[in-house]
Amino acid sequence: MIVVMKRSATEEDIQSMVEHVEALKMKPVVLRGTERTVIAAIGEERVAGIGSLESGPGVDEVLPILAPYKLASRELKQEPTVVRAGTLTVGGDRIGVIAGPCSVESRDQICSTARAVKAAGATALRGGAFKPRTSPYSFQGLKEEGLKLLAAARDETGLAVVTEVIAPDDVELVSDYADVLQIGARNMQNYRLLEAAGKSSRPVLLKRGPSATVDEWLLAAEYILDAGNPNVMLCERGIRTFESHTRFTLPLASAPYVHQKTHLPIVIDPSHGTGHTSLVTAMARASIAAGADGLIVEVHPNPDKAMSDGYQSQTFAQFDEMMHECRRVAAAMDKQLG
Amino acid sequence: MIVVMKRSATEEDIQSMVEHVEALKMKPVVLRGTERTVIAAIGEERVAGIGSLESGPGVDEVLPILAPYKLASRELKQEPTVVRAGTLTVGGDRIGVIAGPCSVESRDQICSTARAVKAAGATALRGGAFKPRTSPYSFQGLKEEGLKLLAAARDETGLAVVTEVIAPDDVELVSDYADVLQIGARNMQNYRLLEAAGKSSRPVLLKRGPSATVDEWLLAAEYILDAGNPNVMLCERGIRTFESHTRFTLPLASAPYVHQKTHLPIVIDPSHGTGHTSLVTAMARASIAAGADGLIVEVHPNPDKAMSDGYQSQTFAQFDEMMHECRRVAAAMDKQLG
Amino acid sequence: MIVVMKRSATEEDIQSMVEHVEALKMKPVVLRGTERTVIAAIGEERVAGIGSLESGPGVDEVLPILAPYKLASRELKQEPTVVRAGTLTVGGDRIGVIAGPCSVESRDQICSTARAVKAAGATALRGGAFKPRTSPYSFQGLKEEGLKLLAAARDETGLAVVTEVIAPDDVELVSDYADVLQIGARNMQNYRLLEAAGKSSRPVLLKRGPSATVDEWLLAAEYILDAGNPNVMLCERGIRTFESHTRFTLPLASAPYVHQKTHLPIVIDPSHGTGHTSLVTAMARASIAAGADGLIVEVHPNPDKAMSDGYQSQTFAQFDEMMHECRRVAAAMDKQLG
Amino acid sequence: MIVVMKRSATEEDIQSMVEHVEALKMKPVVLRGTERTVIAAIGEERVAGIGSLESGPGVDEVLPILAPYKLASRELKQEPTVVRAGTLTVGGDRIGVIAGPCSVESRDQICSTARAVKAAGATALRGGAFKPRTSPYSFQGLKEEGLKLLAAARDETGLAVVTEVIAPDDVELVSDYADVLQIGARNMQNYRLLEAAGKSSRPVLLKRGPSATVDEWLLAAEYILDAGNPNVMLCERGIRTFESHTRFTLPLASAPYVHQKTHLPIVIDPSHGTGHTSLVTAMARASIAAGADGLIVEVHPNPDKAMSDGYQSQTFAQFDEMMHECRRVAAAMDKQLG
Repeated sequence: MIVVMKRSATEEDIQSMVEHVEALKMKPVVLRGTERTVIAAIGEERVAGIGSLESGPGVDEVLPILAPYKLASRELKQEPTVVRAGTLTVGGDRIGVIAGPCSVESRDQICSTARAVKAAGATALRGGAFKPRTSPYSFQGLKEEGLKLLAAARDETGLAVVTEVIAPDDVELVSDYADVLQIGARNMQNYRLLEAAGKSSRPVLLKRGPSATVDEWLLAAEYILDAGNPNVMLCERGIRTFESHTRFTLPLASAPYVHQKTHLPIVIDPSHGTGHTSLVTAMARASIAAGADGLIVEVHPNPDKAMSDGYQSQTFAQFDEMMHECRRVAAAMDKQLG
Repeated sequence: MIVVMKRSATEEDIQSMVEHVEALKMKPVVLRGTERTVIAAIGEERVAGIGSLESGPGVDEVLPILAPYKLASRELKQEPTVVRAGTLTVGGDRIGVIAGPCSVESRDQICSTARAVKAAGATALRGGAFKPRTSPYSFQGLKEEGLKLLAAARDETGLAVVTEVIAPDDVELVSDYADVLQIGARNMQNYRLLEAAGKSSRPVLLKRGPSATVDEWLLAAEYILDAGNPNVMLCERGIRTFESHTRFTLPLASAPYVHQKTHLPIVIDPSHGTGHTSLVTAMARASIAAGADGLIVEVHPNPDKAMSDGYQSQTFAQFDEMMHECRRVAAAMDKQLG
Repeated sequence: MIVVMKRSATEEDIQSMVEHVEALKMKPVVLRGTERTVIAAIGEERVAGIGSLESGPGVDEVLPILAPYKLASRELKQEPTVVRAGTLTVGGDRIGVIAGPCSVESRDQICSTARAVKAAGATALRGGAFKPRTSPYSFQGLKEEGLKLLAAARDETGLAVVTEVIAPDDVELVSDYADVLQIGARNMQNYRLLEAAGKSSRPVLLKRGPSATVDEWLLAAEYILDAGNPNVMLCERGIRTFESHTRFTLPLASAPYVHQKTHLPIVIDPSHGTGHTSLVTAMARASIAAGADGLIVEVHPNPDKAMSDGYQSQTFAQFDEMMHECRRVAAAMDKQLG
Repeated sequence: MIVVMKRSATEEDIQSMVEHVEALKMKPVVLRGTERTVIAAIGEERVAGIGSLESGPGVDEVLPILAPYKLASRELKQEPTVVRAGTLTVGGDRIGVIAGPCSVESRDQICSTARAVKAAGATALRGGAFKPRTSPYSFQGLKEEGLKLLAAARDETGLAVVTEVIAPDDVELVSDYADVLQIGARNMQNYRLLEAAGKSSRPVLLKRGPSATVDEWLLAAEYILDAGNPNVMLCERGIRTFESHTRFTLPLASAPYVHQKTHLPIVIDPSHGTGHTSLVTAMARASIAAGADGLIVEVHPNPDKAMSDGYQSQTFAQFDEMMHECRRVAAAMDKQLG
């Protein structure tokens, strides 16, 4: 249920309602908007006594939440969530740009990339230290050493760091170094990991699984929100289809659709979403025109020598050109890139 | 094979090469570019005597065409094809806009729509007279009466008319009324129809089948080109995937990919590609940013009362707003909308 | 609507009801079952006067048909349709087996195949004379010459002939030579062709399009039934999915599902459905166990030399072994193979 | 690399080769077949000195493993792996049958189901104690209490217990109660979990992710094998496609294909693979005819009241009838069901 409080509701009224909701064995979540406060009551809605919510002091109206996700739903919170982490702002009229290599490989590689993408206008650095890989025999990342190199790149450039966490036990360690926790497509329904990320104070970038429906994706976000972390960014990175000239099919209609259903911002990944460097720039432009709140792009000093994903990584020059083109499209959308 | 003639080649040299190709039992197709002439030799490439092409008078070089499609391939013709039909120009720096109802229903319906979309900046009118419908019990279109109403709308507004043809026997009749023949997704591999359209003097808009690969689609275009009609526009309208919140999944990476593989222009259909009016504008903007050469959009005076596809049709006001937004994105691409 | 007549209804009662339905501007289709007669009234159900059907002489009850397809629906006709064409019987407890090459190539090829598959237990011969091919430059079939060779193979072996028709104008010609008209996957929604086949006296084998839903497929069958031809066999040949180790994905759940929804029999094509000879036998067995009413399998004297589809064709020996294995599974289903 | 030892090779030869492989910084895995021993050398194959393997004492030949997976590949081990866990045998000519409810709900529910499925011929009991659920607000399973109830059902019936583990930290606890660890589709690429299961002594049932390719699935199995656990059963439970009348599309060609590529047995899940009780029996029969080594089926005392997946669960009577039909198909395959 959504309990919409009157503008005139006092702090006491709110506290009273919170207790009332708890007494009904539901979980209260207080959302303080600029104009009024709303209290989500999460739980079994069919319990007796729910009608009594309407008559509470300071209550304007009580509405059901029809979507299967509750805290993520636009019904509950109509103003878009803007996520901030250091230099990165995603949402509203700001389009965050997260760029960097697939894997952290060396100090020189990550620091030179950080400088280059910052110069081109990126607002965060990406780089994988813990790499989930299809084969057990592939490079699995530099692990904590990689995290330290990311932190060094942040120290040098100031850029916020976005990096993947692949197990609940690693959340604390990764949080020590990163500004944003990325949850990868393979782990979108690793619920223990979602719960652990939900208990972290770091914002979370939640990638869509390649065969997840939008409802399944928003319910995965709900696990994080329900665990207490309100700063979730959705990340569309493409779905598995019969189309074989691209690595995945990037369904950009996700951007406007997600904006109708949830207040959470959406970041788009044209690198995984196409799998070919030659298609990344066009799809980055299209993402912005579709309404994306952010981009995440793979950039490498020398894609041909990359330890992973080189075929979809941009060079520094390609990224710079992409940013130039995207900035014009962002302006046509009355938004600011970066 | 591609026989690239020298800049200095004479008309006689070209004629001589045409005869040479024919003598090898291959089909010559002469493509006169702004700088030089190229002769495609289509047929069995393993025949004896093919080496002799290189020593012909005026020949610069002879190259294989690696793609399975030949006349459609970018290897053969590097400059983009611009298709023109009355008020409609598609390709180069012009983004054609084809708008109108799914079905022609009445004189008032089609003429009022023609006026409205023209006022908003559309450069062609769409409307179905012969409707291929999933059920035999659904409205099948006004047929020739519908064609006459389209012609009346053209008479009134000057807009070029785009309408579907669903059988080889109808090509002549439809060509009498229409400026562009549309071949629908269901008929993308109706080869007799492709051949008949290939013999028409009207440009053809070839929709992609919902499970066709890009190669299959370009080979369908090749049927039309091979039959003698060089004016083919590809139309991406979405593929069938597991994604169920949209009617189809619109893979915008088709635009940059098709531009790499073929010289033919690509038109994108955000109405069928999403299936929901509320998503059309965002995907129209994104199509342009992805590099589309044209848009085809469903517009109806009163979508709720439409005899088909009302749930994905825009009102006049929505179309006008869409054009306004798309114009800004087109400008950011250094292109002209309409 | 379904008008169920009483067992006691007279021929006069039936005729009277037919006229009554026509007077309501609906189309009557009389289905005479072993126990009672049912009259389908196809058309706009919301017309005034429909209630009057119930009070007609000899009427037991009047029921709506909920499925979008009417004549094809199990609601209308509960006993399964058995299709017979010469040596071929498909449906009930008989599993028809249609075997032969993708393309008719020569008299020797088709006659030797006919003898071999007959000896192994096949009950019909397949072979393409008019071939719809993805590329205009691929072998398009021997056309009428191919039909004559098929007829020669029938003369020699007695086997019924199943061959594809790809255009309405060819239906008459193909019907002159073939016992069953095959409509290919690419033409499943070529409605003019469906209508033409619906006017033929030959049974029709209707392949499912690779991205058609079951409803779309049954509605395509409805076009044929509605045009007057009651002898339609559905053919499942696989759908397009991301799975790439098979040419298509063969969804065998189609067999039990289709049996719930329609009285029409279903034939399964494990050759196209897998695209690899090494997988055909296992999927043929599985098709029978899933409840298929027939199989259609590609067999060639020398698959490595086949002009089309050699990689999914069986040799004579492989087909013979497949039949041996399938016969055992059919027996476990209390059915007869062939 | 695969080092195939001669039949005459001594234990000393084998030990010597193991040391040789280790000296090349590769990991040796010794596979003792009935006729000869094979040593897999896993690691970087391009190292110097690899040629020296061939001249080792007792070596017959050295072959590369072309598949991306090594320990799972049929190249390495040609005889099929048979997995045994208590009453359950999967592989060879034995078709294991795992049956039970989606979730363990109560002692009475799980024990009555265990008795019923055992009576019908099942050889293992399934039941979820830790449930990964799409929504955080859905029933998440009875957790350790559920494990205890499963153990009680085993005590009563003797049936081996198969249950899901969803996090690395739970592997030890679940292993205390279960005979087989199930890894669900959502966790197919949860590599930490795969590694933890690879260190357990319990056999593992590895479900295919709904958009995983077969290579990705076999590489996931490789993680378990590489961690030291040789007892892996693959489980096909359907893929995500556009087909909407079933919950997933069950691609039975996986069975023969997987048998070509790997020595691991394959279990098929017609409950999740169709999502409708009315389709389960037909697909169970088809699975066996396709060559499945096992079935896993959802059975519940009262499906309408089930806390999860009731729409795809069989009643006891339906399961009994299914077993009866499947037994006949198994016999036609010269295999034993159960």
